[in-house]
Amino acid sequence: MEDLWDGVESEAARRLLRAAVELLAARGYGGASTREIAERAGLSPAAMYVHFPTKAELLYTIIHTVHVTAHAAVVSGGSARGSSATVVRGMVYALAAFHARHQLAARVTQNELAALPPAQWATIRGMRDATEGLVLGEVARGAADGEFDVADLTGTSRAIVSMCVDVARWYHPEGPRTPDEVGALYAHLAARMLGVKA
Amino acid sequence: MEDLWDGVESEAARRLLRAAVELLAARGYGGASTREIAERAGLSPAAMYVHFPTKAELLYTIIHTVHVTAHAAVVSGGSARGSSATVVRGMVYALAAFHARHQLAARVTQNELAALPPAQWATIRGMRDATEGLVLGEVARGAADGEFDVADLTGTSRAIVSMCVDVARWYHPEGPRTPDEVGALYAHLAARMLGVKA
Repeated sequence: MEDLWDGVESEAARRLLRAAVELLAARGYGGASTREIAERAGLSPAAMYVHFPTKAELLYTIIHTVHVTAHAAVVSGGSARGSSATVVRGMVYALAAFHARHQLAARVTQNELAALPPAQWATIRGMRDATEGLVLGEVARGAADGEFDVADLTGTSRAIVSMCVDVARWYHPEGPRTPDEVGALYAHLAARMLGVKA
Repeated sequence: MEDLWDGVESEAARRLLRAAVELLAARGYGGASTREIAERAGLSPAAMYVHFPTKAELLYTIIHTVHVTAHAAVVSGGSARGSSATVVRGMVYALAAFHARHQLAARVTQNELAALPPAQWATIRGMRDATEGLVLGEVARGAADGEFDVADLTGTSRAIVSMCVDVARWYHPEGPRTPDEVGALYAHLAARMLGVKA
């Protein structure tokens, strides 16, 4: 499985991010101290400080990385040439599979958005809007072409994205479905929501 | 709008619950102290103690009430006699509208589930399974009757419930849609997901 932190240069920073995701997922942002995160990563608080001077910076790195990677997944998933149905299916497959594959980091992200200071939240909200905009744009194109039968473009697009994001809340890696199986099911359900003629 | 706390006898307890929902939604469970919750409710910490000796008890009351009320909404929404499509539409309408109407309490509930001790989480998980079971049962009945065209009964039911629950994450009361409009849209989308013959 690809690791969300492959782009992070330092092995110590990657360990801190993994430890933080596990602890924050289990206990919430307020329930895990920087000391505990450092300990779980096998580092001293001083070593942690070098990479993340505050717990807030750790959280922001997690939330930012999740949004960057999810956006890239949707771009890549929707890059196939073809009908709007093909493109939307690819986007939804990618977004749902992403939230299954990285369910802990994505769950921490969704649960702790309220902890972000306003300026960081503005950045993240812009990224969320951009990702949702990719889906909405293709839904609107397919509706204009008569390929989709959708009365409420923004409401339906949002419901599709929302359903994919919420996978992070319930998905268990030991559960009966692989991330790719969730992606395939959700691509199928989204096509139905859009009234794609089979 | 009906109040989630109408069943709570004491006015002071209702004020504490409302204050807790607002503060926990804005800052998370770890980011709001009992003192701040009491202050926002216009009560002394001692007066709060009479009703909720700990912040954990306040949180559990919020989470428990949200689940009891959401379950009751689904029971009531699905109580119409009729086809499985009618019943599922009623359930989904009720569940989605509930999560729009009570978006702050429901958001706190989803975000802070990890804070529950194991015994409380077991109770809440049972209630969640029961609500999901109502939807799954009707989806299975409709599929058996040939009214729905569903290959993956549990995956599709879960996606429908998940989409409704996630309304609490993005819904804004000042937004363009009323809770009833969200309910109507989601009932329509769920019927499509189930392959209901229009």
